[in-house]
Parts: sequence; structure tokens; C-alpha cells
Amino acid sequence: MKIGVVSGNVVSTINFPFFDSKKLMICDYLNSDGSTSGYTIAVDRVGAGVGETVLIMDEGNSARQMFGLDTGPIRAVIVGIVDAADFGETEVG
Amino acid sequence: MKIGVVSGNVVSTINFPFFDSKKLMICDYLNSDGSTSGYTIAVDRVGAGVGETVLIMDEGNSARQMFGLDTGPIRAVIVGIVDAADFGETEVG
Amino acid sequence: MKIGVVSGNVVSTINFPFFDSKKLMICDYLNSDGSTSGYTIAVDRVGAGVGETVLIMDEGNSARQMFGLDTGPIRAVIVGIVDAADFGETEVG
Amino acid sequence: MKIGVVSGNVVSTINFPFFDSKKLMICDYLNSDGSTSGYTIAVDRVGAGVGETVLIMDEGNSARQMFGLDTGPIRAVIVGIVDAADFGETEVG
Amino acid sequence: MKIGVVSGNVVSTINFPFFDSKKLMICDYLNSDGSTSGYTIAVDRVGAGVGETVLIMDEGNSARQMFGLDTGPIRAVIVGIVDAADFGETEVG
Repeated sequence: MKIGVVSGNVVSTINFPFFDSKKLMICDYLNSDGSTSGYTIAVDRVGAGVGETVLIMDEGNSARQMFGLDTGPIRAVIVGIVDAADFGETEVG
Repeated sequence: MKIGVVSGNVVSTINFPFFDSKKLMICDYLNSDGSTSGYTIAVDRVGAGVGETVLIMDEGNSARQMFGLDTGPIRAVIVGIVDAADFGETEVG
Repeated sequence: MKIGVVSGNVVSTINFPFFDSKKLMICDYLNSDGSTSGYTIAVDRVGAGVGETVLIMDEGNSARQMFGLDTGPIRAVIVGIVDAADFGETEVG
Repeated sequence: MKIGVVSGNVVSTINFPFFDSKKLMICDYLNSDGSTSGYTIAVDRVGAGVGETVLIMDEGNSARQMFGLDTGPIRAVIVGIVDAADFGETEVG
Repeated sequence: MKIGVVSGNVVSTINFPFFDSKKLMICDYLNSDGSTSGYTIAVDRVGAGVGETVLIMDEGNSARQMFGLDTGPIRAVIVGIVDAADFGETEVG
């Protein structure tokens, strides 16, 4: 898993039932020094808001299981809001 | 998923039935500052044109499910046209 | 697999039974010159502590099998504590 | 998929029936400006020669299906020779 | 697949039967100019020694099949010793 910071969301029509009423969040990857670099688009499972630090599961089979699905087109999913992350020298949350 | 911008297409004979009449688009990956870097070749599922900002699913099992297949040689697929993407400071679309 | 150094842990509520009582460790990837760059969040299977050098398996199916699961949302897992790693010029552990 | 340029081949004895009489080609990844960076070793399926621009499928399940296999140790395969690739400003082929 | 050079090995107790009597080798990835950058930890299948140039299969399902397993926690495996690799301008082996 990776830690990210929600920076925004994406509006796009995806013609596949799974995505109905799902929110697609833009998550910037958090570096261990507290900066961010790169991003992924993750399906939200926990009601994360912009600016929140989140845990991102980035593997298709894991992502499907978080939604209780055997099949489904998902790869990255926000699985938790980070209460605290201790990077040794940098603390987040 | 990733956000990309369609920059062109690839013409190649692939000797496998799945690819008959499928379009292969070159998609430049969009950075959060609005620039692009790197690219992937994705199968188009939504009729995307050059210059359009798109959502790219880049996982084999997900890609297959978007086409309703159990098996098939696909990894990346354009799954939606991006109406708006809010990267915090940069807005696209 | 990769070699990492445990730098800390993450506190996050993940609403899925697998994660109950599992520890999520922040592991900095070890370079062959002894420095670190980048990190992953791995589920601990061996009781690793901060500062320890560990082996990280980073593939979903492998990770599940280390926990004896057919399904489950895991990708990266700490599978062993490194007693010695010989990088040719640099020795760790 | 990715676009690559075949730069050479690898001679190695692999003790597994699948690799008997298969050619392993070194493919440099093509950047959108026409330069190359990085490479992968791909199993040839189309009779590609050194210097040719090719399409590379880099996912295990897809690679297996191109060879009509349910199982087999393959990840990257050359699936087509590129007749033309339009990167917007750079044209290849 | 990738080409690597074996630079050393890792000593770690992994509490899982598959790893009993398996050797874990540190393999530096070979660049096309003959330099190396980055590494992976691969399970040895061919008796490779330090300094040898090897072919590394880095995909879980492929790795398992090289060992004749349906399941098992492996991702990267040394599948062959490279007799010769022709990178166009640089020759290895």
C-alpha cells in the first residue's frame, strides 16, 4: 500500500455499472519527507475528503475484495484514512 | 487509474481476433501540473479522439472485464473521457 | 522481493476483517549502496521492529499465500528479517 | 502496451519446454520524441528483426493468451510490427 | 524478463516451506550500456554464482510455473544464465 493525500476528484462518465455512484479521487503520493510526487486515481471506499491523508491499496485483486467482488474493473482504492504515520523523522497526521 | 491525453494512434497488424477493428491509441500520461510525461498504448472503448483527456485503466483483469471477457490479451484501456479533473491547483477539462 | 528498512508504522482504521490486529509498517527501500529511497506499506508477518532490515514480498498472490489465504486484500508483506545481505561492495546486517 | 525497437537478442538456456525454439529479443522502449530508454526481454511471436519497431504486450495473462496457453512462464511478448505510430509531433515508421 | 548480474545473496529466515533450501540472490539490473542500476531479490533455479549474468523472470504466475507450483509465494526467479546478449552497440557475455 501507499500513503496519499487527496487533492481533488475526477468527473468522467464510465459506462460500466460498478462505477455508478462511486467517487474517483485524485491522490498525490506522499514521500517520506512530507512532500508529494505523482498521483493515482483511486475509488473511494471510506468517504475521504480533499486534503485528507489516506491509505491506498493498489492491486486489482485486493481492490475487488475490498468491495466484495470476484470480478470488476478496479485497481486502486482508498481503504482507510490515516490517523498517524511515523516515517522516523517526519510525522504525518 | 491514470489520466492521459490522446496524442495519436498506432497502426500495427496483431494476429489475434480480439484486436480486429479495435483502435490502439497513444495516451500521454498527464501530470498534476498539466504537463505530460511517458505514454501507454491503450485500447479505446469510448471513441476517444486526439487531444481528448481520458481515464486509462491499466490492469489486465480490469481491462478484460470492461470488454466482458474472461480471457483476452489486454492490459490498458481507455474507459472514459474526462469531463473535469481537479488537481487542487490545476484544473483540466 | 526487495530489501527494506522499517522506519515506522501507520495507524489507520481499515474496515475489513483481515486487518484486525495486523500491523502496517512503513518500509524504506534499501539501495545497494546502503542508502534508502522510496517506501511501501507492508503488513508485518514476522514481528519486525523499527530499524530492522527486512525482506518484503510485493505481489498480491504471494502475499495472500504467506497468510494462508485464497483471497484477501494484501499486496506487500514483510516475510523475513535479514540476517545478512551481501551487495558485493556493501554489506548490510 | 508499449512501443519498442528491437536492438538485439539474448542467448540463454532456459530449462523449461515453453522456451524451446522461442527467440528472446531485447527491445528498447521508444519515447514519444523518438529516443529510447530502458529495455525489456520479450518473446517474439511475429518474426521481428533487429531495428524493427514493435508492439510489446507486458502482462503475464495477456502474454500467455497470445500463445494460446492457460499457464506458462511468460510476461512480455512482441505482438505486432508497428507500421506507423503517430505521437502528435513525432512520427515513427 | 530482465537481465541482471548476480552481486551477492541474502540470508534471512523465511518461515514458509517453499523457501527451505532455496537461495535468494541479489541481482543488479543490467542497463543496455553495460552499467547496472537497481536490484531485485530473486530465487535461484539454475545454480547462478556471483558475477554471472542471468535472465530474471519477474512475474508471480510465471515464477510459480517455473517451479511447477500452482500456488506459492514467489515473484522473481533466475531462469537462465546468459551466454550472450547483443544490445546493438554493447555486447555482454
